[in-house]
Amino acid sequence: MNSFGLRFKFTTFGESHGKAIGCIVDGVPAGLAIDEEFIQNELNRRKPGQSELTTARDESDSVEILSGVFEGKSTGTPIAMVIFNSNQKSRDYNNIKDIFRPGHADFTYWHKYGLRDYRGGGRSSARETAARVAAGAIAKLILKEIGVEVYGAIAEIDGIESKEFDFDFAKTSIVKSGDKNVESAQIEAVKKAKKAHDSVGGAALVVARRVPIGLGEPIYYKLDSQIASALMSINAAKAVEIGDGIEACRLKGSQNNDEITKEGFVSNHSGGILGGISNGDEVVAKVWFKPTPSIFVEQTSLNTAGEEIKYKLQGRHDPCVAIRGVVVAEAMLAIVLADMALLNMNSKIDYLKRVYQK
Amino acid sequence: MNSFGLRFKFTTFGESHGKAIGCIVDGVPAGLAIDEEFIQNELNRRKPGQSELTTARDESDSVEILSGVFEGKSTGTPIAMVIFNSNQKSRDYNNIKDIFRPGHADFTYWHKYGLRDYRGGGRSSARETAARVAAGAIAKLILKEIGVEVYGAIAEIDGIESKEFDFDFAKTSIVKSGDKNVESAQIEAVKKAKKAHDSVGGAALVVARRVPIGLGEPIYYKLDSQIASALMSINAAKAVEIGDGIEACRLKGSQNNDEITKEGFVSNHSGGILGGISNGDEVVAKVWFKPTPSIFVEQTSLNTAGEEIKYKLQGRHDPCVAIRGVVVAEAMLAIVLADMALLNMNSKIDYLKRVYQK
Amino acid sequence: MNSFGLRFKFTTFGESHGKAIGCIVDGVPAGLAIDEEFIQNELNRRKPGQSELTTARDESDSVEILSGVFEGKSTGTPIAMVIFNSNQKSRDYNNIKDIFRPGHADFTYWHKYGLRDYRGGGRSSARETAARVAAGAIAKLILKEIGVEVYGAIAEIDGIESKEFDFDFAKTSIVKSGDKNVESAQIEAVKKAKKAHDSVGGAALVVARRVPIGLGEPIYYKLDSQIASALMSINAAKAVEIGDGIEACRLKGSQNNDEITKEGFVSNHSGGILGGISNGDEVVAKVWFKPTPSIFVEQTSLNTAGEEIKYKLQGRHDPCVAIRGVVVAEAMLAIVLADMALLNMNSKIDYLKRVYQK
Amino acid sequence: MNSFGLRFKFTTFGESHGKAIGCIVDGVPAGLAIDEEFIQNELNRRKPGQSELTTARDESDSVEILSGVFEGKSTGTPIAMVIFNSNQKSRDYNNIKDIFRPGHADFTYWHKYGLRDYRGGGRSSARETAARVAAGAIAKLILKEIGVEVYGAIAEIDGIESKEFDFDFAKTSIVKSGDKNVESAQIEAVKKAKKAHDSVGGAALVVARRVPIGLGEPIYYKLDSQIASALMSINAAKAVEIGDGIEACRLKGSQNNDEITKEGFVSNHSGGILGGISNGDEVVAKVWFKPTPSIFVEQTSLNTAGEEIKYKLQGRHDPCVAIRGVVVAEAMLAIVLADMALLNMNSKIDYLKRVYQK
Repeated sequence: MNSFGLRFKFTTFGESHGKAIGCIVDGVPAGLAIDEEFIQNELNRRKPGQSELTTARDESDSVEILSGVFEGKSTGTPIAMVIFNSNQKSRDYNNIKDIFRPGHADFTYWHKYGLRDYRGGGRSSARETAARVAAGAIAKLILKEIGVEVYGAIAEIDGIESKEFDFDFAKTSIVKSGDKNVESAQIEAVKKAKKAHDSVGGAALVVARRVPIGLGEPIYYKLDSQIASALMSINAAKAVEIGDGIEACRLKGSQNNDEITKEGFVSNHSGGILGGISNGDEVVAKVWFKPTPSIFVEQTSLNTAGEEIKYKLQGRHDPCVAIRGVVVAEAMLAIVLADMALLNMNSKIDYLKRVYQK
Repeated sequence: MNSFGLRFKFTTFGESHGKAIGCIVDGVPAGLAIDEEFIQNELNRRKPGQSELTTARDESDSVEILSGVFEGKSTGTPIAMVIFNSNQKSRDYNNIKDIFRPGHADFTYWHKYGLRDYRGGGRSSARETAARVAAGAIAKLILKEIGVEVYGAIAEIDGIESKEFDFDFAKTSIVKSGDKNVESAQIEAVKKAKKAHDSVGGAALVVARRVPIGLGEPIYYKLDSQIASALMSINAAKAVEIGDGIEACRLKGSQNNDEITKEGFVSNHSGGILGGISNGDEVVAKVWFKPTPSIFVEQTSLNTAGEEIKYKLQGRHDPCVAIRGVVVAEAMLAIVLADMALLNMNSKIDYLKRVYQK
Repeated sequence: MNSFGLRFKFTTFGESHGKAIGCIVDGVPAGLAIDEEFIQNELNRRKPGQSELTTARDESDSVEILSGVFEGKSTGTPIAMVIFNSNQKSRDYNNIKDIFRPGHADFTYWHKYGLRDYRGGGRSSARETAARVAAGAIAKLILKEIGVEVYGAIAEIDGIESKEFDFDFAKTSIVKSGDKNVESAQIEAVKKAKKAHDSVGGAALVVARRVPIGLGEPIYYKLDSQIASALMSINAAKAVEIGDGIEACRLKGSQNNDEITKEGFVSNHSGGILGGISNGDEVVAKVWFKPTPSIFVEQTSLNTAGEEIKYKLQGRHDPCVAIRGVVVAEAMLAIVLADMALLNMNSKIDYLKRVYQK
Repeated sequence: MNSFGLRFKFTTFGESHGKAIGCIVDGVPAGLAIDEEFIQNELNRRKPGQSELTTARDESDSVEILSGVFEGKSTGTPIAMVIFNSNQKSRDYNNIKDIFRPGHADFTYWHKYGLRDYRGGGRSSARETAARVAAGAIAKLILKEIGVEVYGAIAEIDGIESKEFDFDFAKTSIVKSGDKNVESAQIEAVKKAKKAHDSVGGAALVVARRVPIGLGEPIYYKLDSQIASALMSINAAKAVEIGDGIEACRLKGSQNNDEITKEGFVSNHSGGILGGISNGDEVVAKVWFKPTPSIFVEQTSLNTAGEEIKYKLQGRHDPCVAIRGVVVAEAMLAIVLADMALLNMNSKIDYLKRVYQK
């Protein structure tokens, strides 16, 4: 249950404050140049503490490859990557160990498993997403071989919507905003929430360009349903839209259908997917994140003894998880597409012959 | 790729106008009373031609169980169900066989597979969802054994939102509306679209009650991510929301967190899921459907020879697929929950002992 | 649990005396010419009642394709095949319904599931293998596209070993013997057992020729371990050997290693597999079948009430299941190889580029 | 492809001379006491260099748990275990890097992947089995909770068969022999082979006691077919037998059927499995290992340039891999049974109710 994907398949492990987190990426075709610096850079993009708007937790997030790479290339065997937790033993958790923090998974983990690693949220912490970003970096390297590129940016923060998307700008924006016209308002909203010891929600837009036609495996491994699963699995995700999403569902068919000409699709309301298969246009998806549940105002909850308590969180947390969520969403989209690219190689007898011909 | 679920697992087959459609449901625990009438009733709820608002295609959708049931009970072996297509050979498809209908999967299937069964959309037709409803009916029977019930209703049509949800009312409504106050407006919208040879979109809300705490398998088989995958796999789906969905993402953390008291959760913004695991509250999800791509106004497209054509669809189609989509969405939610209920039996050593104790 | 394979994946259903048996074959690349006559012929080779040496049960085993094929070609969608049981209601089972026949699965199914379809062994009957042969026929058609051919023959009956293998001869032999020199002795052994109301065991050899180098996915989907799983899943199988099998394990390393020259491997003790991957030589495996448990001499057993009984089977059964087992073993080997051929397409970045290059 | 199991599922990584090997064990129910000393002891049983009869490679095989365990108990999250390779950089591989050693996977890995990590056999080295033993130790801890115990012993070396099995004796025997009467002859055979710079084959018997009735999931995840897959996946395995195996296939049905009385099964020719499901008797399987391909006599082979060469291996290797194979076979049997015990919890509606009742 800690694995994702069929042919590009990764399995993650690790708790927020355990010894290490990491993953095994299985199914990477042999002969891929593994650019370790690129992988580390991707992790750095997700890393906390990059600005005053994200948590100040100090993690170097330094990744080490343990297997599957030889002389700089993938060997076709599993690539294990590990990130040791540098500050694992530094805290005292007595104040939260018996408490179910509202909006967190404390309550459900405790009931499901009968016990839980309460240190920093344990397995349910967003720290796990570092492993996804490492796996996603490898997926991006595979996609690059066939020309596909993945981009991400903030689409909304606290109701302030990005109207246009400049992905280069997003890379430099401290809120990873896609829209320079609203960026400062988005920043302001985060700051204001932080000051109020509160938090705000938001959305990330992810886009893949130059996707070949044919990715997606109907009926139950469609490109869109797998993207939905991938994005909804990210911590704090509450909604996923494909293409124009809900907006499309408020149009008439005659407005929403993407007509086709010799030059290609006239519009891209569909987000590049028809019948669960990529149509060659840009693949577009949006994932919505709830406001961080970790807030510093008093809330009512229960403890593990079943007693009602008043509770006020200590510490430092991201006031808007959507920001770092952008990088994770990119990783997940890349992983889905790499998986689909491998799967689609089996779609036609013609491809079979192409591979096995002498 | 035509299978869904891990322990409650079903595999579907069949094309819109082939000999038959159907499914194999694997993983049904032995000893379940299989109520065939209930299964047929569920299919009847999805069946076309029930009102002037759905397609007039005449399909009896009569299901036959071929295996896995003995003397009225499941035997633990696969339950195969088949629905023979009664009107498979009755039409002439020359007008669509070489054409990529906008908004349909014609273009992508043709490119992915190099050929396609063009009759009525072939495999990409929503007719496949009848098999899901049959499987979903069995899932509902399993859930009933542990007290879980699944409901569905239209949450929006053409921008007209259901504000309250009366699921009994929805069962009698020809648009399956959850809200008697807006039902007539919703009906009117569909009629108007139909008259204009156009179509409208909408959304279905699905709810599960009395769900045990603990369903959902982090990190990559979370309850919400699997619901997202399930609902997004339905034809024409473009967005999925869990609980308050996008609305939650526009609140502050202090507004959105569901506080807990001895009486339970004070609110249910989360839709009954925390950290990917059910929290005992109602599980709530919404799936959004685009307007039916089959419309009767002229559109530009390509044919298989790559030529640009003007195209106007003939025939009869649902002007709003969301209506029948309600039943399919219920089925998919039931399937996810039945699967999760089985998986969760492995969560604790205590359960292992409980099953294997003499 | 009723599915086999990852990319060429089939799922079977059906009980011996239920309405029908059949399968869904998922993952067949599009564009494959589906030769229905060939599929039926394969089923005919397995069919009972072909000689006095197999059971006289009268089943036409006529297969019908319900989906996934259009104008003679696979469409990339699931191929459902069904065989209706013609004589399903003709018998009285009162004599066996409460009895656990020794050597059969009656005892274990009853305990595992709490009930069972006792008619003709229900799901545990070898009748299920007809569905495998249908799926195997499609696998053979895929393999043919890349030049691979699969053969089978009896390797031993009642301790009488086939020393050489003429697969053309096996096709005409009523015991499917590979060795014309011992065939009559093998026939005699079966006849003798039948006359004594007893049964005999045996072994089937299966061979694949012109297998490309590279099939098999280490470490847990190796070609040999998947062949072992496939063959051991056949009813009555008790042992599987790869290449020289046990004999190889009694040699010295210097005798058993297959040396390599420019002309290829000097010997083939390994059965064409090294490190779980095909080496380009013939893939060779042997599966051993126990003597049919259905015998007509008195045996001691229990009934479902826990009482000890004396029991003597009525009816007609194969005195040697290995004979028809040859055809099933061929099917399973073909299925494994087709699956592996599809999987191996993802082994190198070079193949990825070859498929996606314009 | 580097994962095994469905509910008790482990994924391994690592090359013989890479940085580390290890595994992620997913699906361990929460609340299991994780005895790290026991896990290390199991690894020590497999470790090389324990006597003059196994390779002198010096590996401490010290295992470290990175996740999934909290305060001594499993938390239901993935348990990652890592063994760092202590001597990874100490050797010069120039003599083997371009050579396909006969009987090894060098040839097939090179062709399948286009490149390979030649250091010590890379991924194809039996070193990977240390990760299996670590996972197997956890499986044994689960099984202990329901009373199941797994044993192993050498059943044959160089044609010298163990006639009786004393598993306590096997634990102290340097060849892990089950039979004190033949142990010295078996030891002698290994010594002789070693002296002759050659190697010998052998077989390991594994047995599980107090297995509940009902483990095994027909049709394609039968207990015996999964055991066959598990054991055949071990390096150098060439055959698997269940119960009496081939011997059973040379008996008459009247001799081989295990009759049942009120006291239980009269005999256990079947190896405790009927119809792919455990029958409550001892589960018995045998796996056969070829003689170690690493020998020190001259052999003919090819190099990567396609040239024919004469080759003579240097270094130290196990003259009989079956010896350490015993521990790996035990681990694999334990893993299969733990997986099946979890799966079987879903077999009956009655169990579902038992788990979900308040």
